[in-house]
Order: sequence, then structure tokens, then C-alpha cells
Amino acid sequence: MTTQQPIPSATVDDFFRNRRTIRRFDPSREISPEIIRNIIDLARQAPNTGNMQLYSVVATTDPEALATLAREGHFGQPAATGARAILTFCIDIRRFSRWCRLSGTEPGLLNLQGFVWSATDTAILAQQAVTIAEVIGLGTCYLGTTTYTADVIARLLNLPEGVLPLTSVALGWPMADDSDIKEPRLPLEAILHDETFADPADATIAEYYRPTEDTPAARRFVDENNLPNLAHVFTQVRYPEAQARAFSELYLREIRRAGFEI
Amino acid sequence: MTTQQPIPSATVDDFFRNRRTIRRFDPSREISPEIIRNIIDLARQAPNTGNMQLYSVVATTDPEALATLAREGHFGQPAATGARAILTFCIDIRRFSRWCRLSGTEPGLLNLQGFVWSATDTAILAQQAVTIAEVIGLGTCYLGTTTYTADVIARLLNLPEGVLPLTSVALGWPMADDSDIKEPRLPLEAILHDETFADPADATIAEYYRPTEDTPAARRFVDENNLPNLAHVFTQVRYPEAQARAFSELYLREIRRAGFEI
Repeated sequence: MTTQQPIPSATVDDFFRNRRTIRRFDPSREISPEIIRNIIDLARQAPNTGNMQLYSVVATTDPEALATLAREGHFGQPAATGARAILTFCIDIRRFSRWCRLSGTEPGLLNLQGFVWSATDTAILAQQAVTIAEVIGLGTCYLGTTTYTADVIARLLNLPEGVLPLTSVALGWPMADDSDIKEPRLPLEAILHDETFADPADATIAEYYRPTEDTPAARRFVDENNLPNLAHVFTQVRYPEAQARAFSELYLREIRRAGFEI
Repeated sequence: MTTQQPIPSATVDDFFRNRRTIRRFDPSREISPEIIRNIIDLARQAPNTGNMQLYSVVATTDPEALATLAREGHFGQPAATGARAILTFCIDIRRFSRWCRLSGTEPGLLNLQGFVWSATDTAILAQQAVTIAEVIGLGTCYLGTTTYTADVIARLLNLPEGVLPLTSVALGWPMADDSDIKEPRLPLEAILHDETFADPADATIAEYYRPTEDTPAARRFVDENNLPNLAHVFTQVRYPEAQARAFSELYLREIRRAGFEI
């Protein structure tokens, strides 16, 4: 399978509505370097700030390197350990900055503005790669662990000054019997605001989240952790504040190691 | 035209390789609220961290509001003044935080980790919306001015604590005679690294940028500004450091106004 195949003849609506994250990959099917090249070559046609292309992608496909990256960089989560490739999407102001200096002028991106631009463009690149991978039938899973272990990943991938990891995508061919259920989204009106931001009443907020709270997965999470409700699962188990603060400090150090003055 | 139409029968390769930003829109064709609803409804099926959906989109379509937003929020650039809709993609930790508090628990996202997650997810949402818009034939243009005037945009769109703009997309039907030329990308090997980051030699960096420097647009920029080369156009005209620092301070104030401790 290559990107030369026709786009599947589903409607636009079907394709984008039914897409879902895949966390279990077929161990018998590898991903060729050619497919990864094609995906990134197409994905980087997505828009970016001033065509500065302030990003880099490191593709890990060597089995031993993959195992190390999955274990040390992504806490051994199954989507990472089972992946046939991990793409690490990096903020990269190094290439542009070196070009400027070689051209006799000093670049000015080592600040919050440069960070936000390159982070936004890196995420745009990642999502375009995910969409292209999904269109050609691959399974993808973002690895949120990337910012938790940015220092470890930077060491494993040999990232120099000016380059730091923002997010990663695990890739593989989906398991035929994969039965992951897609988590429901909030009602559209919770996300999309007409003309100005509409701040809902408390009762409306509660209504927005009720269908999510009522899913079997949510109920199981609450029961297993012996907590009063789903919000507590987020604040006490999945994303506790103390942990977020520790990871914030770690990622800030990594941002500064890359050279940004933030 | 709706998202119920089939995906165009181009190959995946053709569609993603040939996509380009559109800055001139057909003034005679409006965008229905239904199309915007469909695009965002599909786009939010893109992956996001922990299904927390830490984003909001404000759709501006009212002609008077559009004119004000284009003038005050986007420096009157033609892609904004000619747009039939502007979608402002906002980092939004407010909805999730209110739900947590209503559920009797304190959220912990007002830190760098929460900011980076929500910014990444907001950019992913924006790019998915851009792809869907392009697949159904709309023209799109990211408005990088969003972080320059985040405070003005926040005021115009009535953004409360916990919500701040990250990026915006101008939408419209492309002009039939639109002749914008797509700027060339660097060679793929400049972006994609195999296994570990490959730091190129100075001569290789220079080679990477030569085709871009040789485009007629680049030569015109250099000549018009009476500068030695294209890198100087970036550092002296387009993105001077002093300006980037000023915008960094402005955006940091906006990040803090939203409540993040960064």
C-alpha cells in the first residue's frame, strides 16, 4: 500500500467521523521506510508559519531502538511497545537559525513567540501525518508521554540545541480484531461558539458531561478507583496537579535546554 | 456542497501534495453556518489528550463582526478582510475546569503542561478542520496574526478566564483566477531523520535553502528591501527579534490573563 492509491470512496463525513485511535498493531506486518517517507513528504505540504518549517521528525523503526524508546520514553505503554514505528515530532528552530547565521544575520526566535509558532506548526505537521496514515489504512496513536520524558527522548534521539520533542505518534497496521471503543465527544455546542464565546450555566456544563460520565468505561474507572465521580478520576488518577507541575518543570528545563528564553 | 459528498477521487498523494493556502476568496459565495458546523463536528473527532477536549472554536461570519476582527485582530491582511468566515481556535481549559469544580474536585491544568497539551490539541483540531475544508473545496489561510493581537481578539470574542486564542483560519470559496504560487518546501531529508537526529554540515544547510532563495518571490523580496539575502528578509523585515520579543510579552500576558501560571 502506498500513497499512490485512490482516497477510499467513503464520504468525507464517514471517513472523518469514524476515524479512531488504534492502540493494538498487527505484529506480523511491518511499515516500510518508503511509507514513512511518503507520509512525511505529503504531511509537510500542510501550512506553516512563513514557510520557515520550524520542525523535524525522527522516525524510529529499528526493533531494538523502538523497544528502548517505548520503554524509556513512553513508560512501556502497549501502543508504544507494539508499534512498528514511532515518529517523534520535534520543535526545530536549529536548521532555520543556522541558515540565518550562515547568511550573516542573527535569528530571533528563541522566545515565547518562536516557541508557540514552532509548537503550533509541529502539531499541524503531526496531525496531517496522522490523517494521511489513516487514509492509507494505518493505525495511529499519539503518545502524550512525550512531554513527560522529553529529556530522555532528547538523549535517545540525539537532539541538539534548538530541537526538542513536542509529541509522538505510534504507527502500525491495525489488528483485525481490535475492539477499542471510541470515547464520545461532548455535544458540538460545547465546543463551537457563534460569533462570541458563550459561557454556559453550571447546569449546562453538567449536561454536557453526563453522556461521557454514563459510558461503561467511565463507570468502571470510577468504581475501580473508588472515587465519587469521573472528574475525580481525571484530577486524582490520570492527571493529578502535583504530577502536572513536576512535568511542567521538566518540560520547562527541556525548553531552556533547547535554548528558548522562556 | 456538504461533507456528505464523496471524497474527491484524486489519489491520496495528489490531494495532499497539491494542497495550498488560498488568500483570495470569491466575494459572491458565502459559507453556510451548516458547513461550519459540519467541519468542526468532524474535525473534533481528531485525537486529543485524554479526551479532555481542551479547546473551543469561535466562528465569526457576521459581515460587520468579520470586518472588525479582520481590521483589529488581523492587521487588515487581505486573507482576513476577504474571508467569508474566520474560525478562531482557542485553548480552553475553562469548560473542563468548571466541570471538575462542579464535581467537587480541583483541576490541575493551569501550568505549562496544561498549556502545552491544550495548545497541541487546539492546533491538531485546527489542522483537521483545514483538511476537511480543503477536501470539500473551500480555501483556507491560517492567520499568524492571532498571537500578535491575542488580547484584542480575546476582547472582541468575549473570551473569559481559561480561554485564549492560539490560531485562526480564514475561510472562503477560492477565486477561480487565484494565482498564488505555493512556496517550495526544503528537501525531505532536511526534515525527516532516520533513527537519530542528523545534524548537517554548514554546506548542506546552505544547499537545503538554495532552491528557496532562487525563487522569483525570494529574489523580489531581497531586491525590494535592498538586503544581502533571503535570511535577512526573515530577520530584518518579516520576523525581527525585537518584534518577536514584544509579541512574546504580549502573549505571555494573555496566557497569564487566561490563568496559566507560566
